[in-house]
Amino acid sequence: MLTAIAGGESAAVALTAGQAVKLVNTHGSQTVDAWCLAAPDTTQYLSVEHTRRMLSRLFPKEGDPLYSNRRNVLLKIERDTSRGKHDMLVACCDHWLYAFYGCPPGHRNCRDNYFQALARLRVRPDMVPNPINLWMNVAVDGNERIALREPISQPGDYVLLRALMDCYVIFSACPMDITPVNRGGTPRMVHYELVD
Amino acid sequence: MLTAIAGGESAAVALTAGQAVKLVNTHGSQTVDAWCLAAPDTTQYLSVEHTRRMLSRLFPKEGDPLYSNRRNVLLKIERDTSRGKHDMLVACCDHWLYAFYGCPPGHRNCRDNYFQALARLRVRPDMVPNPINLWMNVAVDGNERIALREPISQPGDYVLLRALMDCYVIFSACPMDITPVNRGGTPRMVHYELVD
Repeated sequence: MLTAIAGGESAAVALTAGQAVKLVNTHGSQTVDAWCLAAPDTTQYLSVEHTRRMLSRLFPKEGDPLYSNRRNVLLKIERDTSRGKHDMLVACCDHWLYAFYGCPPGHRNCRDNYFQALARLRVRPDMVPNPINLWMNVAVDGNERIALREPISQPGDYVLLRALMDCYVIFSACPMDITPVNRGGTPRMVHYELVD
Repeated sequence: MLTAIAGGESAAVALTAGQAVKLVNTHGSQTVDAWCLAAPDTTQYLSVEHTRRMLSRLFPKEGDPLYSNRRNVLLKIERDTSRGKHDMLVACCDHWLYAFYGCPPGHRNCRDNYFQALARLRVRPDMVPNPINLWMNVAVDGNERIALREPISQPGDYVLLRALMDCYVIFSACPMDITPVNRGGTPRMVHYELVD
């Protein structure tokens, strides 16, 4: 059964090893920041800096294992119907970023979304790892400059993330409405479901 | 006065805002993992994922501000005599990595070095941010693959890091002797000094 996450909002799910979660980019236009923490010891988390090193690649794609900060495989990208354009370079948006852009206080942001989604599961981690930004289109050019582009994903594209360990997976349908992170500049609804 | 850090070992210094630390790559062959934590609240730390976003660049160079996870400037690279080849993509080595390589337990590693250096200042952080790996030569090719290469730094090259906030700076002369992270495969001594 598909559950909705409104544009700009978040959800967290607890997975036991072997379960999977399918995340659908319903409108195709949305970047979704994703994190994974081991359960119950959330000091082990999906670490993009370890994953890059273990994959020898900047960005993940279908079939890739995703490593923790203890070099264990926490998740695997079992299926990805989009063209594998996801980001592992850029921190999630936070209230400090919206202040930097001159927004008034109270703008929704992925960092607060992360804590809110986990609090609903009574999980209160101390830190915010660098997320995997699903469908976020970060271009890297030959001079090693990085640029934020619109997503190239299509309506209905999905990723299926399989848990290799008991864990929490957190999704935030990024509230960004200033940079081109969401196509059209408007956060839109996505959907997820648990899969055995 | 220059202080030595033996190859494979580490040191931490406390800087007040305005002070700087000069780190010398004495033999030119050494990668040095570097971190910075705000003082006294070490939950604010130099975040490479925020720095990449704020600089729109994968790697830092002379003149760059280095941002915290709250988007404050913690440090500035005031001077860099090398050709600016430093890494912000790869996690520090840890005992899990050496186990992955089949090394017997006890291999020195940058993660333990980080905690040991800070413990000598009675600082006991909960987490290990992705470091800036000074002089670590990580190549990124057009297919977004990353590769570890030998440093291109020369004997006596140095970086001067100026503190914009009170902070701790931690250096680990990386003990890696398996990959080409240190030229020649042998960790070698580096030196640092405080500068007002």
